[in-house]
Amino acid sequence: MTAPERRNTLRWVKLLNLDHVAIAVENLDRAIEGYRNRYRVEPLYRERVDEQGVVEAMIPVGGSFVQLLEPLGGETPVGRFLSKHGEGLHHVAYAVSSIEAALEHLKGEGARLIDETPRVGGRGARIAFVHPGDLAGTLIELVELVDG
Amino acid sequence: MTAPERRNTLRWVKLLNLDHVAIAVENLDRAIEGYRNRYRVEPLYRERVDEQGVVEAMIPVGGSFVQLLEPLGGETPVGRFLSKHGEGLHHVAYAVSSIEAALEHLKGEGARLIDETPRVGGRGARIAFVHPGDLAGTLIELVELVDG
Repeated sequence: MTAPERRNTLRWVKLLNLDHVAIAVENLDRAIEGYRNRYRVEPLYRERVDEQGVVEAMIPVGGSFVQLLEPLGGETPVGRFLSKHGEGLHHVAYAVSSIEAALEHLKGEGARLIDETPRVGGRGARIAFVHPGDLAGTLIELVELVDG
Repeated sequence: MTAPERRNTLRWVKLLNLDHVAIAVENLDRAIEGYRNRYRVEPLYRERVDEQGVVEAMIPVGGSFVQLLEPLGGETPVGRFLSKHGEGLHHVAYAVSSIEAALEHLKGEGARLIDETPRVGGRGARIAFVHPGDLAGTLIELVELVDG
């Protein structure tokens, strides 16, 4: 790798933002109502993401989101999480400027990836998940937002 | 409550930011090294917070922090969390402009609080925890930063 290439890789791997923290919930409406009553916040939008087997609500808090995830059924990743753990924190998502560069770097580090290549998530964003066994027991989502 | 008072309460309860997401880890140095290698991020500082029985590292990501928490012993809240769950997401912290106003509002809502009154956390911030049984299985920390 040449020096300019290395600089580019380092730039791309940089985490731009804590995009969202995701919480698995049994009932999306009830969780939204709870956040409304307790913390005076409202979802910016709701979205059904069939590929991930969830309906999600995104609540803006400062420059990040709280993402509430209700599974579309028991045999989905979030459905299985709820059966095993009950409601609670599910994953954390970091925004990156190039998801390919980030995945390339992680592969070079020997990271344990769930997605070797990007797929499409909510907001039309390109995403990839890193296995919780990779670092600090945490399921990490990398997000490359469409509009940066 | 008069109308101006109600407006003030609503303003104070507003969540200003997703201040941090906290991750319980067995070994702080190893977790910091993991974040450095995988994601090219570095802690801004480390701090021992005896009252909470942890040593913590705060890694800035965008306008928020990833907080890595290593317990000072097994018989601390984070030590017990690790024994039961292993490493992973521990709590999420929201910044508020007045922690008293937020607690007053939550009490009025019948919320299940861990701290009825504020105490001092890392960064000298005034903090209070809301029980995970209150909303969506999530341990929530409210943070009033000293410098706003």
